[in-house]
Amino acid sequence: MSNLILGLDPGSRRTGYGVVRSSGDDIAFVDAGVIELSEGVPLEVRLYRLSLALENLYARHGQLVTVVEKIFFGKNADSAFKLGHARGICLMSAARAGSQVEEYAARFVKKCVTGSGAASKDHVQLVVQALLGLKSKRMALDASDALALAITQAREAGNRERIRSALERTL
Amino acid sequence: MSNLILGLDPGSRRTGYGVVRSSGDDIAFVDAGVIELSEGVPLEVRLYRLSLALENLYARHGQLVTVVEKIFFGKNADSAFKLGHARGICLMSAARAGSQVEEYAARFVKKCVTGSGAASKDHVQLVVQALLGLKSKRMALDASDALALAITQAREAGNRERIRSALERTL
Repeated sequence: MSNLILGLDPGSRRTGYGVVRSSGDDIAFVDAGVIELSEGVPLEVRLYRLSLALENLYARHGQLVTVVEKIFFGKNADSAFKLGHARGICLMSAARAGSQVEEYAARFVKKCVTGSGAASKDHVQLVVQALLGLKSKRMALDASDALALAITQAREAGNRERIRSALERTL
Repeated sequence: MSNLILGLDPGSRRTGYGVVRSSGDDIAFVDAGVIELSEGVPLEVRLYRLSLALENLYARHGQLVTVVEKIFFGKNADSAFKLGHARGICLMSAARAGSQVEEYAARFVKKCVTGSGAASKDHVQLVVQALLGLKSKRMALDASDALALAITQAREAGNRERIRSALERTL
């Protein structure tokens, strides 16, 4: 059985997205990009446009599992507040589309994709492109971060499936 | 001409709302309450339910001006992040309904309604209920905070209108 997985990397100005198809151990690239929330437009209009773009993504790809970053904050309440607005729209849009939502911490995603929880965004992008066979394609960092989330979900779901079948065989 | 004004007081668990009708110097109560986002439900489902409840409010009352608090943060990034999610849904819902959005700082609202920028929530509620002739009605504090936002907008719009007509008369 194959699964479509959507990674979302929300930001107050740009939201990255990446879709992969996972079947068994295979993970294939489907779609990726960045939803730009143009400046010079009131925040409420930007958030509404983001919700429309996400609605469109869910309509285009059918049933998706959605993955977002689990977030911890140290200091900057103002940027946390702004990011919260966009992330709220992402979560609401997932629920509206009937999509299951999963969360992974950034360090976990980097470790899962590159082997190191401290990898840079450029490093994550290199590995994501190699894994998905996107050799020459130049991609926004927000889009490769979103693909990294989707890849992490594909592997985690694969691991859970393997454990489940192994347990079934021993029963 | 009369205007319908919706004040929204978003929170990660409860979002207060209050609708008033303003015509000239008259401000009349129309509707108020709290949208409860039940715990024990994933955040994305709570946010989606909030968006449905707001969609319903806009459908019920027709063309509204929306007023939310302008927010400044000092320290707690985590609560700022959570509040941002709900506030993002409020702003997105307003834009989706084609509603104009206005923002006022909490101190400005308290000063406008009670005369003191440092008034307590209970004090704001007392004055809001007296202004709107809601003598005996027991009301959630989130709802009276939302009504205070709507009243502030009614008065500010009234002031702007008076200034505009005064200027027109002098031209």
